[in-house]
Amino acid sequence: MTDSLDGLAAIVGPAHLLTEATDTAPYVTDWRGRYQGQARCVVRPGTAEEVSQVVRLCLARGWPMVPQGGNTSLCGAATPDASGGAVVISLARLNRIRAVDGDNNTLTAEAGCLLASVQERAAAADRLFPLALASEGSCQVGGNLSTNAGGVHVLRYGNTRDLTLGLEVVLPSGELWDGLRGLRKDNTGYDLKHLFIGAEGTLGIITAAVFKLFPLPGARAVAWLAVPDPRAALVLLQRAQDRFQARLIAFELVSRPALELVLRHIPGMHDPLPGSASPWFVLLELNDGGEDDLLQDSLTAFMGDRLEGGEVTDGVLAQSRDQVRQLWALRENISEAQKREGVSIKHDVAVPVARVPEFLSRAEPLLQAAFPGVRIVAFGHAGDGNLHYNLSQPERERNQAFIAATPAVNRQVYDLVTELGGTISAEHGLGQLKRDMILRYKSPLEMDMMRAVKHLFDPRGLMNPGKIFA
Amino acid sequence: MTDSLDGLAAIVGPAHLLTEATDTAPYVTDWRGRYQGQARCVVRPGTAEEVSQVVRLCLARGWPMVPQGGNTSLCGAATPDASGGAVVISLARLNRIRAVDGDNNTLTAEAGCLLASVQERAAAADRLFPLALASEGSCQVGGNLSTNAGGVHVLRYGNTRDLTLGLEVVLPSGELWDGLRGLRKDNTGYDLKHLFIGAEGTLGIITAAVFKLFPLPGARAVAWLAVPDPRAALVLLQRAQDRFQARLIAFELVSRPALELVLRHIPGMHDPLPGSASPWFVLLELNDGGEDDLLQDSLTAFMGDRLEGGEVTDGVLAQSRDQVRQLWALRENISEAQKREGVSIKHDVAVPVARVPEFLSRAEPLLQAAFPGVRIVAFGHAGDGNLHYNLSQPERERNQAFIAATPAVNRQVYDLVTELGGTISAEHGLGQLKRDMILRYKSPLEMDMMRAVKHLFDPRGLMNPGKIFA
Repeated sequence: MTDSLDGLAAIVGPAHLLTEATDTAPYVTDWRGRYQGQARCVVRPGTAEEVSQVVRLCLARGWPMVPQGGNTSLCGAATPDASGGAVVISLARLNRIRAVDGDNNTLTAEAGCLLASVQERAAAADRLFPLALASEGSCQVGGNLSTNAGGVHVLRYGNTRDLTLGLEVVLPSGELWDGLRGLRKDNTGYDLKHLFIGAEGTLGIITAAVFKLFPLPGARAVAWLAVPDPRAALVLLQRAQDRFQARLIAFELVSRPALELVLRHIPGMHDPLPGSASPWFVLLELNDGGEDDLLQDSLTAFMGDRLEGGEVTDGVLAQSRDQVRQLWALRENISEAQKREGVSIKHDVAVPVARVPEFLSRAEPLLQAAFPGVRIVAFGHAGDGNLHYNLSQPERERNQAFIAATPAVNRQVYDLVTELGGTISAEHGLGQLKRDMILRYKSPLEMDMMRAVKHLFDPRGLMNPGKIFA
Repeated sequence: MTDSLDGLAAIVGPAHLLTEATDTAPYVTDWRGRYQGQARCVVRPGTAEEVSQVVRLCLARGWPMVPQGGNTSLCGAATPDASGGAVVISLARLNRIRAVDGDNNTLTAEAGCLLASVQERAAAADRLFPLALASEGSCQVGGNLSTNAGGVHVLRYGNTRDLTLGLEVVLPSGELWDGLRGLRKDNTGYDLKHLFIGAEGTLGIITAAVFKLFPLPGARAVAWLAVPDPRAALVLLQRAQDRFQARLIAFELVSRPALELVLRHIPGMHDPLPGSASPWFVLLELNDGGEDDLLQDSLTAFMGDRLEGGEVTDGVLAQSRDQVRQLWALRENISEAQKREGVSIKHDVAVPVARVPEFLSRAEPLLQAAFPGVRIVAFGHAGDGNLHYNLSQPERERNQAFIAATPAVNRQVYDLVTELGGTISAEHGLGQLKRDMILRYKSPLEMDMMRAVKHLFDPRGLMNPGKIFA
């Protein structure tokens, strides 16, 4: 077996070909521990050219390929299947920032760069790379691109797709496409980069990208607000957008159960409104040029107006950058806190922004009727219509039976989401987790178009098989 | 001949099938009068379902189809060839606004809606649809989508692509794809809408779209600034972005020759800085919530700083909405004024924003050496790196010879643009005009990918043939 891998070792160097089970183990299991695969080997090419050669060799031998970034997928998109036939291609060594152009507001990064390191390099050039999400310290931008990652600043800056001007991609044929343009406008035919963004590695392997940068906003103002219900939160969002326009960069909804999980499980967390019995909270951030003071004054005035208007019942404004971090930590630790509580059925759904209240008010009674006592942990990017909606039974034994009923639970949630014009995956992709479920919700015509594109680029079906499509 | 068109008449009604030369004439010539085609007939379907039936019938008979919106293409993208075999499918009767959802900040418009009418419907709902360009009173949003139109607000809001959440498309097979989603996040496979946006009608006929809306900014501040050179304009841009962040919505560069053309040919235009001999001007606009006063004060302070910094040598701030319109009219009438001066060789190029000064300083001596006395009218969306760069010889007779040398002129301009990492079409598309030139500048691999996608969706090559591809 090892003999036949010599070609790969010759391309990447023997040190970067992993074949022992102890070495490959971290690459064949997903972050949540839901998918356990096997691999023929793991290769860690160091350049796009090496990726190209690896793909050519795998193609020649008929070996399936699984591109992998930081392995933080929540849908098993980067985990090989159990057959052991696949080659995992880790992009981790493609971790160079190739260029930072402050004058053009662009940054060219290889796929294996950590998201946090791209943020830091931009900041060092007095610029902002606005993509921000909980796993930013471990996820890689190649993965962000392949899932079109969202995060907490989509309201102002868009998804990863919207932050990308150019791509470099190794196609399933092994050819290297240089689409690394840094232009704000380019209308010379089909904009092919959008095919690869969000394709979860099924159409080729992204090796580098040109990202947009923005002026680094000097001023931040962050508030934690108690709201009576999601409908009040929606009105609050509209008022904040009217007043602050693009200065409103984040608008996150947090339910009391989500807050309580964090306070219970994460050390050092404090309730910012200890006297409040509010069932819902909003974490809102404004950014602008200049200093904090003026922006904070504006936000204080706005909070006063909204207290009068009744959309807000209580609130606190961060008085320092340390308090900003503390408020954001409450939001960012929800997933981690929930993990410590045991397994849950997670949903990453989106509906039109205006229908978030209706989704929440209709889903709960449906689920309580079908699964009495179910605990709903709802939170997320309400400004984008995107909710994380996680379900479990508080008692361990009942929870096992509940988890076993996942298909029925999903169906209730996703049918409602679809009725409201929404989607079953807002920012996590399909991966292995939702590749079958999507067939119920996406039209056969659209699935046929997607399959035709897949077949066009990857006629032998070797590029990340079993992801998006069964 | 007419007999064989009965099927079309049965679909759209006899009144909407045009066959007489006098009736079809406006549909077979482009706006600039450069392309004169012939058509088998013009059909004007009234619904997406009728478009679908028309396409199925044309497909069955092997008739080429040319979708057409407001017929304002600058590249001949909506004009049939001279063979007379094509059916022009006018989308003008698909002109309904299907929905305005102020709470979700979305608007669903059919392809034949005038851009201006979409802007107006958004404004009536107290919302902004930010796509804005000189032809907004006559262009249709289906055409805007098909060329991924840019315009004057790209700096803040992006191109048409960035403003589009969902599409409805009649495929070359006649199938109707309903992709009319109104979601800010949706990662459930390939984002197919991006294939059709900017495809110039070669992959299908867009019949409707869901567009993003934004809060209507109450405050506007507009200034006309004299700058010593494009390099100073670039520094001015960076300072303005740092200071005003997303409040800076437009940053247009106008050369003195461009201004002089407008003053000469367009009635009612006045030089805002009659004492200035500046070779370059910048028109910039800030938007925000609230009232004009505060924003104008900020801009006045900024102008003072930039006068001190030397990037600005003189300037005027619009004191009323009427003055705002007057300043913008100077910019928007450049193309019209140039048309009255006679034919010119037009370029719609983009380079990385930071390289605009280098492009301008290198192109002029190159062109003057090759074509002594050439008149350069340069202007455009400098904030996006996008310049309109129009060339002519002031004397009519010399101009005829110059126009005859178009291929050599283009080559000088486009070779330089490409050397600077730019594009030969920033916002106008390829159409017929640039379908051959692009072969020199786009990689064979990328052209192959584009051709493969075209063949996948339109294997018989009947959908807008001769556009993008020869």
